[in-house]
Amino acid sequence: MSLLSVGTMAFDSIETPFGKAERIIGGSAMYVAWAASHFYQNINQVSIIGHDFPDSEMQELSVKGVNFDGVESVKDGKSFFWSGKYHEDMNSRDTLITELNVLEQFDPKLPESYKTPKCLMLGNLAPATQISVLDQLNQKPGLVVLDTMNFWMDVALGELKTVLKRIDVLVINDSEARQLSGEKALIKAAVKIQEMGPRSLIIKKGEHGALLFEDDRVFSAPAMPLAEVFDPTGAGDVFAGGFVGYLAATGDYSFENKKTAVIAGSVLASFCVEKFGVQRLKEINQKDIMERMVAFNDLARFNSGIMPELTGLS
Amino acid sequence: MSLLSVGTMAFDSIETPFGKAERIIGGSAMYVAWAASHFYQNINQVSIIGHDFPDSEMQELSVKGVNFDGVESVKDGKSFFWSGKYHEDMNSRDTLITELNVLEQFDPKLPESYKTPKCLMLGNLAPATQISVLDQLNQKPGLVVLDTMNFWMDVALGELKTVLKRIDVLVINDSEARQLSGEKALIKAAVKIQEMGPRSLIIKKGEHGALLFEDDRVFSAPAMPLAEVFDPTGAGDVFAGGFVGYLAATGDYSFENKKTAVIAGSVLASFCVEKFGVQRLKEINQKDIMERMVAFNDLARFNSGIMPELTGLS
Repeated sequence: MSLLSVGTMAFDSIETPFGKAERIIGGSAMYVAWAASHFYQNINQVSIIGHDFPDSEMQELSVKGVNFDGVESVKDGKSFFWSGKYHEDMNSRDTLITELNVLEQFDPKLPESYKTPKCLMLGNLAPATQISVLDQLNQKPGLVVLDTMNFWMDVALGELKTVLKRIDVLVINDSEARQLSGEKALIKAAVKIQEMGPRSLIIKKGEHGALLFEDDRVFSAPAMPLAEVFDPTGAGDVFAGGFVGYLAATGDYSFENKKTAVIAGSVLASFCVEKFGVQRLKEINQKDIMERMVAFNDLARFNSGIMPELTGLS
Repeated sequence: MSLLSVGTMAFDSIETPFGKAERIIGGSAMYVAWAASHFYQNINQVSIIGHDFPDSEMQELSVKGVNFDGVESVKDGKSFFWSGKYHEDMNSRDTLITELNVLEQFDPKLPESYKTPKCLMLGNLAPATQISVLDQLNQKPGLVVLDTMNFWMDVALGELKTVLKRIDVLVINDSEARQLSGEKALIKAAVKIQEMGPRSLIIKKGEHGALLFEDDRVFSAPAMPLAEVFDPTGAGDVFAGGFVGYLAATGDYSFENKKTAVIAGSVLASFCVEKFGVQRLKEINQKDIMERMVAFNDLARFNSGIMPELTGLS
């Protein structure tokens, strides 16, 4: 049993108000792996790379329990490359360059040993690619988590709706939830999206935290107020990776445990943005994570108890 | 001992995407009274009205423990009038009419019995008026809460800074916190504003909840995800009124109890927006409030416990 993670492995060049990083390691699957492996050390990764992707980066993750047998290496191709520049407020960014390179020919072929995963993380990819992965499985995983983005709603809405019928948890941001549902109020958006398939929906709200919807229940997760966001790249992937990694580790897919998993994802995302790329995720250890779990608890905990003084009033 | 509340009593004409209400009862002190009186029934109100303000509205609140001896009635004047129209998204509005009327001559004179309050709520008024109230007190209250707005930062920043030195809790929204501090990150804004005087700061974030800062501690309160906001008018006053009313009722000004008070304020604000004006606050009872306190608890509670499965990992 394992966590099967499908996504990109890439180079990113990033400029933020705090500095520049040239051709650092990125891609959704790399962020997911660095996040999830803090909780769960049996991850099977599916992706595609060119000749330029460094072995050393995979070796580092192998030590953390990530298997790369499902990564196709194209000898005469180059890895996916993205370059972007964040605006002063860090909430928006301009894409400067997108070179799909080997990603254009990505047609995942799952090794036999990958076909009975405990949990499946479908990173942000073409819905047709996500469907292809689901079709290759020998059995339905205990939990299927899917990430997507507004681009696929624009160009592949039909296929996106098809894959939504086959997943358990959809992870998107607030503007994507509004676009997908056509509803402005997130609680209405959630109802409509749940009707499309996923029993559970996580709506990420950036600096305002996240909402988890399941059946008719809602959980509001806070965000840690941060003095500085150094580089937001990958924070959404890290959130999803921490979420699914925590659930794979505990094997408990109840609403209560999903709430804790949302906090676990938030904790890892709050570390991720402190440095460029996956750097901060490489540095932190279990103690750092536990301490920030406690900090999130302190941040959100209140006593809604008996209010004895008020008994019998009006 | 009492809760002293200083603010406006007014007529509002409101248009939202859901309907119109002509010349309904409004004003910060009326919203505060309807909120706070759900928790604490010894409120001394200071305001100014014209001949047109209906006695019946004050009689309704008198039954709830609100005293109006401090309200100046100007026989040949008209009450403050405001008219506004909300945009489709309800997050912004246009002011159509502002008739200050008797508010222009508001120079509060506190009755002797008002001068030793347990708690003081200084509603959004000219900082000079707020200072005048503080100057008339015989002793420092146990808690002084102040509301203000960007307008006073523009036209009376010096006086605002003077009054900030004399209060305990400042309640403003996120854009006001950014304007007052010159800082974009709210956690940095909070530090700067706390240096201006108030030990505690509440930053309201509308549909994203509220942050409470005290010394170096932070509490993040969730907002109830609402399918519909019928009329947001007065929600901020109701939040402040619920907050200070809860603290006056419990007499406990600890950080822990202020957290619960923030939830109490959020609960009342979530009711307020369900109908025009103070209507919904007139209808609800203690049981409604307790039930929604529980709903907020359910919304925000998570288990950040031991994660036994993870012990010993990396």
